[in-house]
This record gives sequence, C-alpha cells and structure tokens, in this order.
Amino acid sequence: MSQDRREGFELAPIGWVRSPWPEKFGVPRQSGLAQSEARIELDPQRIPREALRGLEQVSHLWLVSWFHGLREAEPFRPTVRPPRLGGSQRLGVLATRSPHRPNPIGLSVVRLLAIDDRTLRVRGIDLLDGTPVLDIKPYLPWADVVADATCEWADAAPRELEVRFAAQVGAIDEALRAAIVDTLRWDPRPAHQRGDASREYGMRLLEVDLRFRVDERGVEVLAIR
Amino acid sequence: MSQDRREGFELAPIGWVRSPWPEKFGVPRQSGLAQSEARIELDPQRIPREALRGLEQVSHLWLVSWFHGLREAEPFRPTVRPPRLGGSQRLGVLATRSPHRPNPIGLSVVRLLAIDDRTLRVRGIDLLDGTPVLDIKPYLPWADVVADATCEWADAAPRELEVRFAAQVGAIDEALRAAIVDTLRWDPRPAHQRGDASREYGMRLLEVDLRFRVDERGVEVLAIR
Repeated sequence: MSQDRREGFELAPIGWVRSPWPEKFGVPRQSGLAQSEARIELDPQRIPREALRGLEQVSHLWLVSWFHGLREAEPFRPTVRPPRLGGSQRLGVLATRSPHRPNPIGLSVVRLLAIDDRTLRVRGIDLLDGTPVLDIKPYLPWADVVADATCEWADAAPRELEVRFAAQVGAIDEALRAAIVDTLRWDPRPAHQRGDASREYGMRLLEVDLRFRVDERGVEVLAIR
Repeated sequence: MSQDRREGFELAPIGWVRSPWPEKFGVPRQSGLAQSEARIELDPQRIPREALRGLEQVSHLWLVSWFHGLREAEPFRPTVRPPRLGGSQRLGVLATRSPHRPNPIGLSVVRLLAIDDRTLRVRGIDLLDGTPVLDIKPYLPWADVVADATCEWADAAPRELEVRFAAQVGAIDEALRAAIVDTLRWDPRPAHQRGDASREYGMRLLEVDLRFRVDERGVEVLAIR
C-alpha cells in the first residue's frame, strides 16, 4: 500500500444548520425523532441558486454534516458506550452512530418543508445549532429504503417519555412548549445517570434555560428562564 | 458571518473499496442495483479491530466515500444532466446524486455479508475499485427507512435490460458471466448516446475487457478478452 493512498482530503462547508439546540445536551440522538423545525442556510458565496434546481421535487434530504461540537483534543476511541445500552456496554464506534468517529461525519435524513432562496426549512434534524453542512442529497426511496435491514442492538426508536410542566413554570408560548416537549420526551440524560430520579438537569433550548428532572412518571419541567 | 466559519476540514480514508469496476464507465449508478460482491479493506494502521465490535449485529451499512475518480481540475458545476432524464434536462447538483458535487462525498447502502478481520464483504456497492472510504455506519431501519419519501424526477429504479452473449463469445466462467450481466443490465451508456444502436462500447470489468452494444432487444456482449 503506497503512502499516498493515505493522504487526506479537504472539505469546506456548503452551509450551516440553524436548530433549536445550542448545546450538545438535548440534541436528538437520531434524525426523525424530534419534529421541531430547523433551517439549513447555504453559503451564497459557494452555492449558486441553480444548484438547488429541482429540489422542490424531493420530499426528504440527506444531510452530510461535520460534527463540530466535539472537543478538539478529544481523540477518536475505538469503542463507545451507546446510551441505548445503558451506558455500560461497549460497541465498536463503526457499529454505532456515535459522533466520536475516525472522521466526524454526520448523516441525517430530514423532511424538506420549503425552499426560500438559499435557505431550506426542514423537520426531523438531529444536529447542533451551527453545524457545518458538507453535502445535501435527495433521499431516493428505491435505493435508500432497505425494508429488510436489521440492527440487533438498536432495533426500534428509543422509548418516549411523557413531559409535564410543574405548576411554578406558569404560562409559556405554545411554540416554546412544543419545542420543549419535542426535546425532553427523548430523555436527553446521559445513560449512566438514569438511575437517579432526584437529580436536576439544566439545558439551553432556543432562547431559554430549562431545569428538569426525570422520575418513573416521565419528565417534569421545573423552571424556564 | 465570520471568515473562520468557512474554514475547511481535513479527512483521511479509513479504508478502500475493492469492487469489480476499475473504470468509471460501468459503475452502477446507485447502491443496491448491482449485486456483485465487493470488499471494504479497512486500514489496519488507522482502525483497530475493536472499532468493529458489534458490527456483526447489523445487516446493512452506510458507506460514506470520497469520489476519487474525478478529474482533479474538473470544477464543480451548479447543474448536471442526470442519465435518467435522457441527458438533456439540467437539474441542480444538490437535487441529484451526481458525483460532481461541491464536496465529492458519496453515500451508498450495502448489505454486509461477512467480516474477516478488517475486511468487510458486501453486496450492492456502486463505487469504483479503489474508492477511499471515509466512514462506515450501521443502517438503522427505524431512522433511515422513510416510507413516505418521494423524489418526483427519479421515482423508481432505472429500467433493466436483458443481457445476451453473441455466439462468438464462447464459454466463460459462471462468476464472470454473472458479473457481466449484473453490470450491463443497468445500461452503462451515457444518456445522450442511447439513440445509436450500432455503436459499440468497450469497458473493463474485473480482469477482462468487454465489447458490447445495445439495441431494442437489450444488451449484446460481443467480445470478452
């Protein structure tokens, strides 16, 4: 194997994600789970309007993205502990969708809602606000739907929790309430902390700071600031 | 928008594809079309064996790859002419799966047949022999199957042709015959040449050179060397 085969490649973003999740904590763990609206803002210096011609004929898109929220110095580890397996069992990173990969490339499928010049409105995204987008492709059902595919260790969507609001939270805007429920129902807690129902968590979502806890009844929102 | 947001990213291959297609001509135009077996050879210097732990629980894989067969100087063009539309109609590159993209990243789904140390045997690949692989991910049916997805301009697999062998071809190995049929039935001709039934084509497949032509009855293999 010649050394030059190992040479690297350079990529530049074609745009950026604008999503409700400004921090890693709370970002949905797969596309299609959260239904909150997000945007892809394509770079007008790089992507001419004609590069999108025909995209209105497509219902869903693949987003190939760059997992930029990782600590720079964080090394790629061969194994990870998927939240779904309780945080104790290790799997090879290439057998998972963990962002801590040899090349930190993300793959998400989203529903395309509307195209406004070089901004795409989408639903179902699982990416941090500000994530660089490397590519957009049409979802081709006859090639991308694999009806007989199986993944034994992750064979269905994660369990959904009920979300309730404590009395002291008071009245909130309906759109904000929907975004909170959309995020918290998927249980953003790290897997190894899930045994502790008294523990309070804080997260940032859209323009607010949330406090919540999780017990056997589901998620309780304690405060919104 | 700050200038640093536009900075690029560096990637290095984690492995390489070994496929029956040493030239761009003949490479299937989407994954899942051709059923010939291929291999992914992961780089043992980069990918420890543990990075694959659990992969045997997965039936299908996403391959994120680097389209390396393009001419270096070839600029990214905003629109392309998909073969499916007869080669005359232009669509925006981001509305297609053309390899001539702003970032030449490929996305293929393949069936995983077997894992032998750091070599994966797969079926359904649509990549040139030698293609660098950037990432491997498990196909997660509950996230990646989008049952209601539509793509108006490419709503079904391409039409399949019948493949026959001219008498002068003589006896050939059954595996080679299967690989030839697997490739030619998807009509590898450039779309704008499809009107000309007298035209002969040459292509390289596995270790042989093929000659063939296409008429209203299908593909006729004329010679194998």
